[in-house]
Amino acid sequence: MTIQVELNGVPSRPSHLVAERLPAMSIASPATHPVLIAGTWREANAESTFQATDPNRNEKLDAAFPVSSWKDCDEALDAAVEAAAELRKLGPAKIADFMEAYADKIDAAKDQLVETAFAETGLARSPRLADVELPRTSNQLRAAAKACRTGNWAMPTIDTQTGIRSCLGPLGPVCVFGPNNFPFAFGSVSGGDFAAAIAAGNPVIGKANSSHPDTTRLFAELALEALTETGLPAATVQLIYRTSHADGEKLVSDPRNGATGYTGSRGAGLTLKSAADKAGKPIYLELSSVNPVVITPAALEERGDAIVDEFITSVLMGTGQFCTNPGMVMLVKGEATDKFIAAVKERFTAAPAGTLLSPAVASSLGKSIEQLVGFGAELLAGGGEAESDRCAMANTLLKTSGTDFLGNPEGFQTEAFGNASLIVVADNLDQLCESIRHLEGNLTGCVYTSTNGGDEDAYSQIAFELEPKVGRMLNDKMPTGVAVSAAMNHGGPYPATGHPGFTAVGVPGSLIRFGKLTSFDNVRESRLPALLQSTPPTADTWRLVDGAWTKDAIS
Amino acid sequence: MTIQVELNGVPSRPSHLVAERLPAMSIASPATHPVLIAGTWREANAESTFQATDPNRNEKLDAAFPVSSWKDCDEALDAAVEAAAELRKLGPAKIADFMEAYADKIDAAKDQLVETAFAETGLARSPRLADVELPRTSNQLRAAAKACRTGNWAMPTIDTQTGIRSCLGPLGPVCVFGPNNFPFAFGSVSGGDFAAAIAAGNPVIGKANSSHPDTTRLFAELALEALTETGLPAATVQLIYRTSHADGEKLVSDPRNGATGYTGSRGAGLTLKSAADKAGKPIYLELSSVNPVVITPAALEERGDAIVDEFITSVLMGTGQFCTNPGMVMLVKGEATDKFIAAVKERFTAAPAGTLLSPAVASSLGKSIEQLVGFGAELLAGGGEAESDRCAMANTLLKTSGTDFLGNPEGFQTEAFGNASLIVVADNLDQLCESIRHLEGNLTGCVYTSTNGGDEDAYSQIAFELEPKVGRMLNDKMPTGVAVSAAMNHGGPYPATGHPGFTAVGVPGSLIRFGKLTSFDNVRESRLPALLQSTPPTADTWRLVDGAWTKDAIS
Repeated sequence: MTIQVELNGVPSRPSHLVAERLPAMSIASPATHPVLIAGTWREANAESTFQATDPNRNEKLDAAFPVSSWKDCDEALDAAVEAAAELRKLGPAKIADFMEAYADKIDAAKDQLVETAFAETGLARSPRLADVELPRTSNQLRAAAKACRTGNWAMPTIDTQTGIRSCLGPLGPVCVFGPNNFPFAFGSVSGGDFAAAIAAGNPVIGKANSSHPDTTRLFAELALEALTETGLPAATVQLIYRTSHADGEKLVSDPRNGATGYTGSRGAGLTLKSAADKAGKPIYLELSSVNPVVITPAALEERGDAIVDEFITSVLMGTGQFCTNPGMVMLVKGEATDKFIAAVKERFTAAPAGTLLSPAVASSLGKSIEQLVGFGAELLAGGGEAESDRCAMANTLLKTSGTDFLGNPEGFQTEAFGNASLIVVADNLDQLCESIRHLEGNLTGCVYTSTNGGDEDAYSQIAFELEPKVGRMLNDKMPTGVAVSAAMNHGGPYPATGHPGFTAVGVPGSLIRFGKLTSFDNVRESRLPALLQSTPPTADTWRLVDGAWTKDAIS
Repeated sequence: MTIQVELNGVPSRPSHLVAERLPAMSIASPATHPVLIAGTWREANAESTFQATDPNRNEKLDAAFPVSSWKDCDEALDAAVEAAAELRKLGPAKIADFMEAYADKIDAAKDQLVETAFAETGLARSPRLADVELPRTSNQLRAAAKACRTGNWAMPTIDTQTGIRSCLGPLGPVCVFGPNNFPFAFGSVSGGDFAAAIAAGNPVIGKANSSHPDTTRLFAELALEALTETGLPAATVQLIYRTSHADGEKLVSDPRNGATGYTGSRGAGLTLKSAADKAGKPIYLELSSVNPVVITPAALEERGDAIVDEFITSVLMGTGQFCTNPGMVMLVKGEATDKFIAAVKERFTAAPAGTLLSPAVASSLGKSIEQLVGFGAELLAGGGEAESDRCAMANTLLKTSGTDFLGNPEGFQTEAFGNASLIVVADNLDQLCESIRHLEGNLTGCVYTSTNGGDEDAYSQIAFELEPKVGRMLNDKMPTGVAVSAAMNHGGPYPATGHPGFTAVGVPGSLIRFGKLTSFDNVRESRLPALLQSTPPTADTWRLVDGAWTKDAIS
């Protein structure tokens, strides 16, 4: 790591600080993509390769990607440690410059990103990828860059009486494991965890999701360009595509790693959590969630048809592959409920089945449906494969009673990730509330009641039970929109996530996860971080000074 | 738990909500103190008992306390779950009333608390217990009460454009395991973790430290009085004295538990952490720390005598039994350093050895010293028992070289909790910095440099390495004072604590640990928590509204 190299037109600097952007295929074996480590696209230390599948055709794509051995992880960690030290010296403004430059490059590369992601995920080019997810991704980077620049995430706190000042700062390299369902907005080197970790001052080692490696590669190329142009250490963003499970566990628990962000399946997430916990390394998980939607009889009587429309739009959007997809609807038996179920069944049957992200997602959805039926759920619609020439399952609607749910609450909370939902029909409000008490932690919980306030007592009872179980409570609204808002909580109690206090979406909240708190006690003014010096670093910087929030300098 | 009881003058309510304050000994077997569960002092389900030791005489005290079986924990958890629900209904203002009433009762009971704690811990009655720790304890409760009342800990965030609002709220029952060294300010039912958990809206199950059970019992009596007077559920504060290790692990990982606060030894703490982690339950630990103090040659040349004074005061205060005791001094070899060491050695030898908290502390200190000597540390002063008729060890000063330290950094970081310190003498600044790079996470790190700025470069190098290793950086000041300040961080990277982002001392920071984040998305105004309604609950409530902190109502 200390060899000095001379490149054309680039001053001599340690090699890992220099962005050597080589054409992707030139230094790897012809068929396998290189990894991005220490600023260089280089051949992976790999024993095997993998290919993604085009779910639109259910056929493997040509490009081969390496399954890295520990040596790649080891070198990435070393380079990340050096980059972390460099970033601490460079400070927030330079990091924000990079993030903004990167966001612009993402916008400019829209067509290529959309085509590549479409081929790898089957998600609609428009509006989904081009008009929703891509701008969300670049804007998320810009919002995080702004928080990075102002420090309006770091809780700068100044106590003039005791001479103690504190703020959050970087905690070291962050490993990001992105999910399959948002190739841009939650991508390992482009999404929310990435933006939050970088804005908090930390380099990122991205582990691509195996379902869209080529999309992730494109992002890493753009990031490396932006790093070079803005003078950041090239190892600020590194990319590997896949490792063995054992190496994944080793990576998150390595002493050189600072923290991990993971979005994906519960099984893999909890395995990583166990390894990270043992080593005392923070790990932020976003795992499974059935996102219960509770609808009172009064709401159905008042506007049942409209609620059917809202539900169908939400549950089948993106083929149901949202973390916040309404996978469970909780109702009280009666005429309005019967009518609602009949209408939903009709719509599920009539609607074309969307394409799923991958053969693995289709197979996992099939298994979950089988399990739910095995527990006694009644199949109202779908249940099998839609077409064999693409990754798809028929829109699947299941039903169970409140009594059966209470007999096996864990089983009936099996997540069926995709275009499926389970309706739980309780005998009465008490049984509905009792069922809610048996829910695991979820990202969201929705309650639909009548608009005239006629069932306010029912709302109180339902909400009192539901609120402790969810990260976000919604009224009269489906959960699939996750606004990038300072007030957003894309989180929730275990096992929806690993900690009930943090959000994965929203600025500044999501950044806090990747910060280390440091107090400066009697530290001389010139030695303080800029954020804690008497004059704040920007005119938009808020600080808690002697108990009052202010943008003013300290007199 | 559902039996209705009728008590004199108390309306009929479930028994666990009523404070039945009975004389301590009346319902237990004559020799064993009862536990406080569900509002009742009742005989413990215990298979054995234990007694604390008076360290001043090295003799067991008369009072016997129960080692509770799982049944006590189980009943406490059930009662805590019901209390948690009640507290959510009652809201912050009532909880703050309780905390303030309890603080007043603590002040009023000063004499009895001080006498009891003196007998159990050997800590000086005055100024330590009566004039420092006791007022700190009641004032900490008052500060937390104020944050509870205003909501100025809960990060209320309002986004008027999207209609999303969020804040932290209670997360359920909290188990608090207090340490041996602060019977008041960190006590299980009186200290910082307790105050933070209650102020965040959660009931507490206190597990007394076995070295001062009677002191903890007195606090629980006062708490129960205050609960009754202010109309809070009596199970808001419960107390057990000791459990088996297995039951302790079961307690922190029980589904009914929300989170745990633990201050104590690394071994026991990590065992609890492992159990809590597996169950997805947050646990906040404050474990061991050697609190490195780095002193440059220039500082010693300028004011060596004064620094000797400061160091002696800090390291021998409270017989060195502070979490932030300066257990390691890092120097660069030379004349000024030799002089410093000689002076410290003389002072260590001349100063009377203080009393240690318990025979266990004395024995553990002896073992740590033995280990350090075994690793090759040179014994400059002390090393053995001071007197056998009380718990005491001679003031112990050890020395090693930077080279030896780097040969076994883990070994030389063995915490010697008590009146002992290890001096590490590096060959030069580079070796000093290299040694700092090998430090584990610590609560504090101090750097003494010359006041004229002559060794600013050395400071930069030292601080750059030290800051990532510590929760609090100090300049020209010893670490043993831990002010209750909003800017305090009494925390630090693993293994000083379990998470680098949280502080155990300071309001509002310490409360955040015990909060669950909830977003309210499109939730009707009247259904929002008071903290998020358009008009804030108090005139002193700060909220982040559309990116700006304000005390104003939303128009």
